[in-house]
Amino acid sequence: MVDIPSDLECVFHPRSVAVVGASSSFGKWGQMIFSNLVAGKFPGRIFPVNPKESSLYGLKAYPRVQDIPEAVDLVVVTTPAATVPAVLSACGEKGVKGVVLITSGFGETDAAGKQMEKEIVAICRGKQIRLVGPNTMGILSTHAGLFATGTHSRPRAGDVAFVSQSGNLGNQLIHWAKNQNIGISLFAGSGNEAMISCVDYLYYLERDPRSRLIVLYLENIADGRAFLETAARVNRTKPIILLKGGRTEAGMRAAASHTGSMGGRDAIFRAACRQAGVAVVNEPMELLDLSAGFSSLPLPKGNRVGIVTLGGGWGVVTADACNERGLKVPRLPDAIVTEIGRLLPDFWSRGNPVDLVGTRDLEVPLVAVEALLKWDGIDAVISLGIVGRVEMVRLLLQSTREVDPQAQPGLLDEFEEMAEAYEVQYIQRIVELMERYRKPVLGVSFVRTDKGLVRSIPGKIYSGVFYPSPERAVCTLASIVAYARFHERSYPS
Amino acid sequence: MVDIPSDLECVFHPRSVAVVGASSSFGKWGQMIFSNLVAGKFPGRIFPVNPKESSLYGLKAYPRVQDIPEAVDLVVVTTPAATVPAVLSACGEKGVKGVVLITSGFGETDAAGKQMEKEIVAICRGKQIRLVGPNTMGILSTHAGLFATGTHSRPRAGDVAFVSQSGNLGNQLIHWAKNQNIGISLFAGSGNEAMISCVDYLYYLERDPRSRLIVLYLENIADGRAFLETAARVNRTKPIILLKGGRTEAGMRAAASHTGSMGGRDAIFRAACRQAGVAVVNEPMELLDLSAGFSSLPLPKGNRVGIVTLGGGWGVVTADACNERGLKVPRLPDAIVTEIGRLLPDFWSRGNPVDLVGTRDLEVPLVAVEALLKWDGIDAVISLGIVGRVEMVRLLLQSTREVDPQAQPGLLDEFEEMAEAYEVQYIQRIVELMERYRKPVLGVSFVRTDKGLVRSIPGKIYSGVFYPSPERAVCTLASIVAYARFHERSYPS
Repeated sequence: MVDIPSDLECVFHPRSVAVVGASSSFGKWGQMIFSNLVAGKFPGRIFPVNPKESSLYGLKAYPRVQDIPEAVDLVVVTTPAATVPAVLSACGEKGVKGVVLITSGFGETDAAGKQMEKEIVAICRGKQIRLVGPNTMGILSTHAGLFATGTHSRPRAGDVAFVSQSGNLGNQLIHWAKNQNIGISLFAGSGNEAMISCVDYLYYLERDPRSRLIVLYLENIADGRAFLETAARVNRTKPIILLKGGRTEAGMRAAASHTGSMGGRDAIFRAACRQAGVAVVNEPMELLDLSAGFSSLPLPKGNRVGIVTLGGGWGVVTADACNERGLKVPRLPDAIVTEIGRLLPDFWSRGNPVDLVGTRDLEVPLVAVEALLKWDGIDAVISLGIVGRVEMVRLLLQSTREVDPQAQPGLLDEFEEMAEAYEVQYIQRIVELMERYRKPVLGVSFVRTDKGLVRSIPGKIYSGVFYPSPERAVCTLASIVAYARFHERSYPS
Repeated sequence: MVDIPSDLECVFHPRSVAVVGASSSFGKWGQMIFSNLVAGKFPGRIFPVNPKESSLYGLKAYPRVQDIPEAVDLVVVTTPAATVPAVLSACGEKGVKGVVLITSGFGETDAAGKQMEKEIVAICRGKQIRLVGPNTMGILSTHAGLFATGTHSRPRAGDVAFVSQSGNLGNQLIHWAKNQNIGISLFAGSGNEAMISCVDYLYYLERDPRSRLIVLYLENIADGRAFLETAARVNRTKPIILLKGGRTEAGMRAAASHTGSMGGRDAIFRAACRQAGVAVVNEPMELLDLSAGFSSLPLPKGNRVGIVTLGGGWGVVTADACNERGLKVPRLPDAIVTEIGRLLPDFWSRGNPVDLVGTRDLEVPLVAVEALLKWDGIDAVISLGIVGRVEMVRLLLQSTREVDPQAQPGLLDEFEEMAEAYEVQYIQRIVELMERYRKPVLGVSFVRTDKGLVRSIPGKIYSGVFYPSPERAVCTLASIVAYARFHERSYPS
């Protein structure tokens, strides 16, 4: 915990940003971060600081921070470790409120580095500067239009906040989040956490109205008790998803050389996190899956799942995955069997999973999903194979065009357009059903598209989510169910 | 087990194929399968059979099978169940050797369907016809140029054989295999297995020189003892990977309505499979991951893993995943630390994982991988983040072109070309290193490309394999290590 206000608004919503070490030399940190800020269209003032340049990318450059004639809220520093104390002192004189210290070579190295880290923290404390890092790959704040990382992936603005002690892993996840259309509020590579720790970020995020979900990758937690207390409180209103690196002997050794941390007593710590209702995951990909699900779906009231599938085998593996992860797949009452059965051939499954036996009637999947949602014996639906089917239709059309000399091209194009239009309409209807029944519907699309996990509909609070495999949908739902139970206990209705 | 020869060569390598029910009506089974055969360029004769057409897709059509003037090896039947006995009798008269019966409405439905299934099996036995199905979505045999499924994904020819009791799940996996560049020898949707069972396929595959790896999705095994005995024997020379559907109460109920099967005593069965050295997986995606790994990599001699990473966090999560799955991440001897360290800044990890601390020296990752491979304390290497980095370079270049008025376009293009060329060369070198040291190198590429998991190099027996996340690489390696151990016990060197 830092002894300055935990308000990090100046870091994530600055009106002006200076980059010390800004450069046009391709691939340097000072170039990567500076070009990202400019290309990302930060709406405030940007001041490149570099004594060797008079201007960079059309912006006037300044030799030193103290030469900038206007107020500077945030400074990003990329110059070598030896230059940092003087830069920070100058920032203090100038009234700078926040510094993101990209530079490495401090506490993660040797005794001298640790000593230097103490000194820079002392300077920042004396000047009321909030220090992010050192040894970080930067920060993002989408709602502020602030992209200050070396990785040029700019995800859409959304409500998932992500704090990572590993910059490399964090930036990769941000890149994935962008490709998966997951909305991000902010990202902080917290680096060595010399001053601002994961606990401080939690404090800030608890109050940040733009963040509704908190994702953490942590290797080392300096004050475990403070973290657990804070996480337990914050998690009651904003779900926390945690990946803890350094769970095993090999992972701990690796973490020790990476952030200079020692994990230790990890199983106990993770058990305590679970006790606090935190969703503890084992794999980076799960952070993405859970982010997509938590940020797009209503919370379910229980663990009873209805499954709708185009093919029997997928229904079987999904039912297995549900049972193995503590989700129930209840039998259907006769009334629902009759209702769905009206639209299907006699040999349909007559149960849950609802196997649509390859139906091509476009209305049937939606009728089946709604029949399950409106029954009070079901808390959530997993729907498999509808979205993405257009890709299979396309392959068949392609062959048909190749081999059928009599085929009418116009008719075939029409089939393709219909399949595409249906998919868009299906997603819209699923989102409307979630609104009406306040129950989550998780989709599984077996076909890789460029549209990502999350399919948002303008003006809607929920979004369609389509996982590439049943197990990823089921894992996500199991975590959401666990959180919903915890939440229910905290706020009984 | 069938009482006719288990040689299925006539099914997977026919010289001529007839399609009963062939049609040009878009989206009918008879159209989907027939157009796939034709568009897939089956090199033998194709005979459409349809009494209402004189020709289809430029091929002469015949009213009935017995009207075809030439020999017919294989017949694919898509006409309704009631027509099937007469079609099969005609096939028998004609001397047809194999039938793929797409048609459903037999044993998976009711007592009448079960009775009808018995009757058609009796016809086939009497005429020495090998019957695939009924209730199947078809077969593929890439080395024969035979694509007789309704899903128009045509994977490249390779050595992975895939037998699935679910056509839907099977076809989806074939589609994925194509997208991931996994080479397939054959696929059989075994359907209800009225005559040819999974045991018969194993018998055939044991002798099929084109298949070196066997992937199974099964819900119901009629003769468990025969299956286990056969699997145990076959698995000694050709690794078997098994996903068993219907492991849980919900999955069993779903399977019962799907293929009319009851799983039962599943845990015991799966334990027996493991005892036989079969790789038993829980999720469809693992079938793909293991197919890619087993078919592309040399078998390791033990479980000791070297990790090479561009970023510390990814090294930590990979080390954790290794330890959690029974793989060791040994400490490195001083000599190797010194050798790798010569090329890295002082603050590198000096251990395993080898953290290349974001180096851009293109030679370093290869030097590090080779230093690990040539040490006899390491059995396999996982290398993270090198392949795919070009995508990050592209994003940075894009921003730079946008914002830097002074940037030289030629120079930026050159950076991009260099990054692309390096990736190709890196994969080539990794494959050469695997050849030299006979140890597997599993890659992790965090960036989604259209190139797939497997990157093959012409003329090389091994291929590069690049998983999208460390956990998937580690899971695959753990399965390969387990198989190698079993194999070693069967054939001690």
